Amino acid sequence: MSRQKRLVIVDEKEILKILEEYGKSIANQILEGEKPKIVIPIRTFSNTIWDRKAKILRLGPRKAVREFFDIGESKRFMQTVLMLSLIVKARREGDYPTIRDLYYTGKHTIVYVDEYGKKRREETWNDQRESNAVIQDIEVATGLLREHMGIMHDAKGKIVGNVIIRSKGYEIDLSRMGSGAYAIPPNVDKIEILKVDADYVLVVEKDAIFERLNEEEFWKRNRAVLITGKGQPDRATRRIVRRLWEEFGLPVYILTDCDAYGFAIYSVYRSGSISLSYESERLATPEARFLGITVTDIEKYKIPRNYIIKATDRDIKRAKELMNYPWFKESKEWLKQLKLFIEKGEKVEIEALSGHGFKFLSKTYIPEKIRRKEWIV
Amino acid sequence: MSRQKRLVIVDEKEILKILEEYGKSIANQILEGEKPKIVIPIRTFSNTIWDRKAKILRLGPRKAVREFFDIGESKRFMQTVLMLSLIVKARREGDYPTIRDLYYTGKHTIVYVDEYGKKRREETWNDQRESNAVIQDIEVATGLLREHMGIMHDAKGKIVGNVIIRSKGYEIDLSRMGSGAYAIPPNVDKIEILKVDADYVLVVEKDAIFERLNEEEFWKRNRAVLITGKGQPDRATRRIVRRLWEEFGLPVYILTDCDAYGFAIYSVYRSGSISLSYESERLATPEARFLGITVTDIEKYKIPRNYIIKATDRDIKRAKELMNYPWFKESKEWLKQLKLFIEKGEKVEIEALSGHGFKFLSKTYIPEKIRRKEWIV
Repeated sequence: MSRQKRLVIVDEKEILKILEEYGKSIANQILEGEKPKIVIPIRTFSNTIWDRKAKILRLGPRKAVREFFDIGESKRFMQTVLMLSLIVKARREGDYPTIRDLYYTGKHTIVYVDEYGKKRREETWNDQRESNAVIQDIEVATGLLREHMGIMHDAKGKIVGNVIIRSKGYEIDLSRMGSGAYAIPPNVDKIEILKVDADYVLVVEKDAIFERLNEEEFWKRNRAVLITGKGQPDRATRRIVRRLWEEFGLPVYILTDCDAYGFAIYSVYRSGSISLSYESERLATPEARFLGITVTDIEKYKIPRNYIIKATDRDIKRAKELMNYPWFKESKEWLKQLKLFIEKGEKVEIEALSGHGFKFLSKTYIPEKIRRKEWIV
Repeated sequence: MSRQKRLVIVDEKEILKILEEYGKSIANQILEGEKPKIVIPIRTFSNTIWDRKAKILRLGPRKAVREFFDIGESKRFMQTVLMLSLIVKARREGDYPTIRDLYYTGKHTIVYVDEYGKKRREETWNDQRESNAVIQDIEVATGLLREHMGIMHDAKGKIVGNVIIRSKGYEIDLSRMGSGAYAIPPNVDKIEILKVDADYVLVVEKDAIFERLNEEEFWKRNRAVLITGKGQPDRATRRIVRRLWEEFGLPVYILTDCDAYGFAIYSVYRSGSISLSYESERLATPEARFLGITVTDIEKYKIPRNYIIKATDRDIKRAKELMNYPWFKESKEWLKQLKLFIEKGEKVEIEALSGHGFKFLSKTYIPEKIRRKEWIV
């Protein structure tokens, strides 16, 4: 395994220091009589590269220089400094604002007199896309994730299994959640994973399937860590999957519906997303394996004809896009599956396996496929 | 408080017995040479009544008789018996199918010869709406919730606080979840709530606000149980809120955005939804209080003009609908708020309070409003 150990920054003081240093570096330019500027790696598609060796998406080498005295850049410059000041303030005072809180707190009207002596008004930002974008800029500039900076957002992941973690001083045993589960917090890096006694991680796309496998204690019988990100996963779910693989060497299996949306979910867990390519190193799990349902499973597992759903034009379009992603393009097995999907135009849900009995998924499909190494990558 | 204690059925054997007895009662009709029929309370809007005293929506007294020998009813009769047999099978074998699993397992093609000697084919059901509808029929007919029958589905609620529960034999302390939370399972009635050491329940609409209040340990400082249902709540979240009120007498406060969607969320927690009126007795919390944000709060808390969002036509339409719901119609305070909302056409998000500082929501707004009894009902 070509795993790369990375220091997880959890110390609040260290984080505050990194943010303050970044702010100081801007202030120092002014104090030294320089024209203030900030240098930020470019986060566009054209600066996203596929790192074949590490098997993840990465940000390319291009950087943008944002100069305060460039009229086209000064607003974004102001927004970046404004956001940085809000985040530093929150860290100093132990607050945990949401991305939406930061949007509102920073939003105000600047009244100024332009070069023609005319009074003008401008909003610091007009919508949350603008404030979110500068948070991302600060992430790439400082190397910190927004989670490290104590910024809150929705978190939809769940986890159960023989895992003991420590969070806020409490040791939490994720095998003792009963019928419920541990709801993964936004900042996974504040959690210490103390002990894992399991053979693999099973990530299921659907929450209802998670609930069912949890209720029947699949993870206990199969020595698995069971996780769901509820469809397209959020950053926190991706981060915990990555850490279980990176820190404990657990193989990771992804179980989704057999459709373009399911394949794309696998893709995000494994290689990262274009919009968050700068995070892949911490969020992607480049050795994640697709357990199913594959297109060839439809025949192999004799899915009845009336369980099969016709793929929509959107499914086909999405599958064609996926064929161009390098990590699919460079996989013979995936090319075969995607071509077959486009050719047949058929999709199948995980629940269709229930046609062979309610226990088929947990007693036969998952354990057999893992034992026979029938995953694809 | 006019609370009504209700026995929570948690015993698996008892549940199986109720389901089997129901099946037997149908079989017995046939064995005794009667025309088989099933009687099921009608779940339509016209049979939904507002119980002013109990302050919840209820199913009215009307029932439908479904006769097997009535050509217009025989298919639904077949579907009901088919679904019942699947559920009984799952309970006997300790399986926990999802509603989607039940749809697939029951879906097959019936080939038959019609009265003209022509061979015909018919699907047991064509989509999940049909199979879900008969699950609901079985719920109203047996008085069991689908959760009691071991049927799984998505569950999106989270809870933290000084609460100790027991689930699957484990005692779980909901104050020891660290930065995470306890993900509420689909079947809340399988949980025993052993101990609650708190003064009230705070239900927040938004997950990101939940994460923030949890991270800053609001619930610990304020002796609150903190819950989110992530927008419009699912049945499990509503059930646990109801149980905390019913079994422990805790006041329940609902905190949402100031918009028609937020008001509707309060409405569902408090009085139930029309589509699930037969569940209100177990899911609604008729003394739930709306903590805010109210329309009058916009002025009172001096929300800056540029934080205010223009209400859409849909917001206004929804608010007008709400004005006709009896529990709003019979509340002078709510009528005032809704009229004002429609008149001004302005809405505000919870996060807008961050304009007064990140701590304003948790240190001022929530505790002050509760202390001064400034909620509305």
